[in-house]
Amino acid sequence: MEPVKIGLLGLGTVGGGSVTVLTRNADEIARRAGRAIQITHAAARQYDPERIEGLEQIGRISDDAFAVVDDLAVEIVIELIGGYSPARELVLKAIENGKHVVTANKALIAMHGNEIFAAAQAKGVMVGFEAAVAGGIPIIKAVREGLAANRIEWIAGIINGTGNFILTEMRDKGRDFADVLAEAQRLGYAEADPTFDVEGIDAAHKLTILASLAFGIPLQFDKTFTEGISKIEPQDVAFAAELGYRIKHLGITRRTAAGIEMRVHPTLIPHRRLIANVDGVMNAVLVKGDAVGPTLYYGAGAGALPTASAVVADVVDLVRALTTDPTNRVPHLAFQPGELADTPVLPIDAVETAYYLRITALDRPGVMASIAGILSEEGISIEAIKQKEPAEGETTVPLILLTHRIEEAAMNRAIARIEAFDGVSGKVVRIRMEGLEG
Amino acid sequence: MEPVKIGLLGLGTVGGGSVTVLTRNADEIARRAGRAIQITHAAARQYDPERIEGLEQIGRISDDAFAVVDDLAVEIVIELIGGYSPARELVLKAIENGKHVVTANKALIAMHGNEIFAAAQAKGVMVGFEAAVAGGIPIIKAVREGLAANRIEWIAGIINGTGNFILTEMRDKGRDFADVLAEAQRLGYAEADPTFDVEGIDAAHKLTILASLAFGIPLQFDKTFTEGISKIEPQDVAFAAELGYRIKHLGITRRTAAGIEMRVHPTLIPHRRLIANVDGVMNAVLVKGDAVGPTLYYGAGAGALPTASAVVADVVDLVRALTTDPTNRVPHLAFQPGELADTPVLPIDAVETAYYLRITALDRPGVMASIAGILSEEGISIEAIKQKEPAEGETTVPLILLTHRIEEAAMNRAIARIEAFDGVSGKVVRIRMEGLEG
Repeated sequence: MEPVKIGLLGLGTVGGGSVTVLTRNADEIARRAGRAIQITHAAARQYDPERIEGLEQIGRISDDAFAVVDDLAVEIVIELIGGYSPARELVLKAIENGKHVVTANKALIAMHGNEIFAAAQAKGVMVGFEAAVAGGIPIIKAVREGLAANRIEWIAGIINGTGNFILTEMRDKGRDFADVLAEAQRLGYAEADPTFDVEGIDAAHKLTILASLAFGIPLQFDKTFTEGISKIEPQDVAFAAELGYRIKHLGITRRTAAGIEMRVHPTLIPHRRLIANVDGVMNAVLVKGDAVGPTLYYGAGAGALPTASAVVADVVDLVRALTTDPTNRVPHLAFQPGELADTPVLPIDAVETAYYLRITALDRPGVMASIAGILSEEGISIEAIKQKEPAEGETTVPLILLTHRIEEAAMNRAIARIEAFDGVSGKVVRIRMEGLEG
Repeated sequence: MEPVKIGLLGLGTVGGGSVTVLTRNADEIARRAGRAIQITHAAARQYDPERIEGLEQIGRISDDAFAVVDDLAVEIVIELIGGYSPARELVLKAIENGKHVVTANKALIAMHGNEIFAAAQAKGVMVGFEAAVAGGIPIIKAVREGLAANRIEWIAGIINGTGNFILTEMRDKGRDFADVLAEAQRLGYAEADPTFDVEGIDAAHKLTILASLAFGIPLQFDKTFTEGISKIEPQDVAFAAELGYRIKHLGITRRTAAGIEMRVHPTLIPHRRLIANVDGVMNAVLVKGDAVGPTLYYGAGAGALPTASAVVADVVDLVRALTTDPTNRVPHLAFQPGELADTPVLPIDAVETAYYLRITALDRPGVMASIAGILSEEGISIEAIKQKEPAEGETTVPLILLTHRIEEAAMNRAIARIEAFDGVSGKVVRIRMEGLEG
């Protein structure tokens, strides 16, 4: 049988990695897929031919991406350019031309996925995006197919390797954020502009996708709450550890009676949870289904070859889809297109979590009682208190509180009152806390 | 559209769980699958109608399993009877009748899978067996589809929850094997006859399946080496911990230049590995692919609802397969049926691992030197030595050695010589050791 003809957009890290994987493992992939897979046409603005193993297998390389999506011979287009534009236009054009698409572009799917999937559905083609979430971990397939029998209750994931590397180093070595970030940049784990990673935007893109797959709702990136890790201080990492917790930058989506939570923020989690021990640049996603209970998926969330692993797995899936009935396939967002729900996404004010609070209290009698009184009046129960001795010559003392679950709006009111109280100095540090229990 | 009609064989733990999941999550499953799924015909020798939520949805229940597989209206048969016979005959008959099959029967697939898949292939039907390995963890889908781009290097899994519960209790509480086994039996985690679980036969069934999926070889249960955990002593658990290791009962399959290893045995692994922290009845499978690196999959490996989660996910997959091109599907063993390889399976003598050795040495000068000499002569390098002080009045002392990797045949020769040496008392305790490094 003829090889399946692939058009490739982008020859950067993941593009180059995909060429390498398709070349290096060509025999084994063909033994699995039932057909050889060949990149016949690629486009890239710039690339380094010396650095890409297998580049010589590509039939034709130019800088004209639209020529690839218009190439009549191409059956599957792999989009690895990244960003919103022209990725969106290229993907829509490929679909219009009746081609299947594979993309690793989380920003594109989170922002324009609804439009892209509708176009693909109308045209009877498929869009694979396994590589868009957690790199090489086949988490989209797990949630969409592997857990299809479950009513999913929640998902919590370490889905940004840069952030996890920084938090791991802060914990292991007691270093501060800026110092570790600079090292991550030197090592190539963080971009020159680290905003997307450390402020949680990249994780929010991925979480948006996971929430839609889990709960059958349209993609709603604009409703995902995002808080970064740039304000985490070494002392909070250390206090959390003393209390038996680790701070991880989690993407969390949960179904409640009132609606769906979608949020990315630093989170204290018990150190005995398996996901609390996922360190360095690794990713992991914990999924709670009503039948299966908790399941966890762990692996490399980025990098040339791990991401290419997911890209090429999607290609193998699509090779099989070439002859399937277009009306009976795995739906893009796990639920049939006509079956998406309009369940509301909850604003962060309506989210209920437990909290870690660090309060700089004046070292005088009655302060703790006043703070406890404010919390009590707002309906907040205290689970644990840790009061440090004041340092020599200091008039303030850090007071650490862990609370039970409470709606964020109530916590905001309590924090405003505590900050206004004259027994307290400066701002209250608040980090959300989750038990992640089965 | 008409509901898909299911025939169900067996209403025990997993059968009852599958009825419950299909009933409880009927709406959500139909929104995913695109069609409602209905059990129209079930057979069971005996069952407890009070204990099965959703039993009333089943059209007809009798004790005649062959009537179910011969029922013209049934499109998919779920086999949850277990054992070899009549499960084999029922599955083959269902296939002959043109029905798709889902089974959780690891023994059946490991022993008769080659025959069953060939029959299914010839008939153009599919056999789903996700539930046969690691219960609710979608590990078969991950290896077969999610990692399809990779040349898989090795897999190591905790794939028997009973054994993992026992080893976890032995470590946490310092208890001995027989004591914990009795408790596991009381808790319902272990069968009255625990042989299948504690001697590694159940794990070997599952490992046989994973090896075929990973390396594209026919199922060869008879070539899987199996060693149980019944001889593990609390002192070895404790010595391992002092050296920074945990003992887990692992199924390991690895591709080497000489062939494929398939082995189930107690294994020392570094305590910092994520899989070393998988405790209690939970399962986890670590897969090393050449592109993706290490990935890990964790969840409940048994139980009514977790196993039903995998069974019903297979049903949802098959609902989509009802209209697919039979010549272009995901192959049962990940590789196309004509593309399985005859790579040899290595005998345990040819397997290379590191070792933990516990030697009961006489407390006199020169014994250590003699043992080190024997090891050296057999080409075995020592990585670490731990010598305990002799207890008051004792004339022997436990000597713990960790070795570098060496072929098992050489280790067998060395152990025979050490046991024959008059500076040593009794048998040498030998536990294999793996780094499970990325």
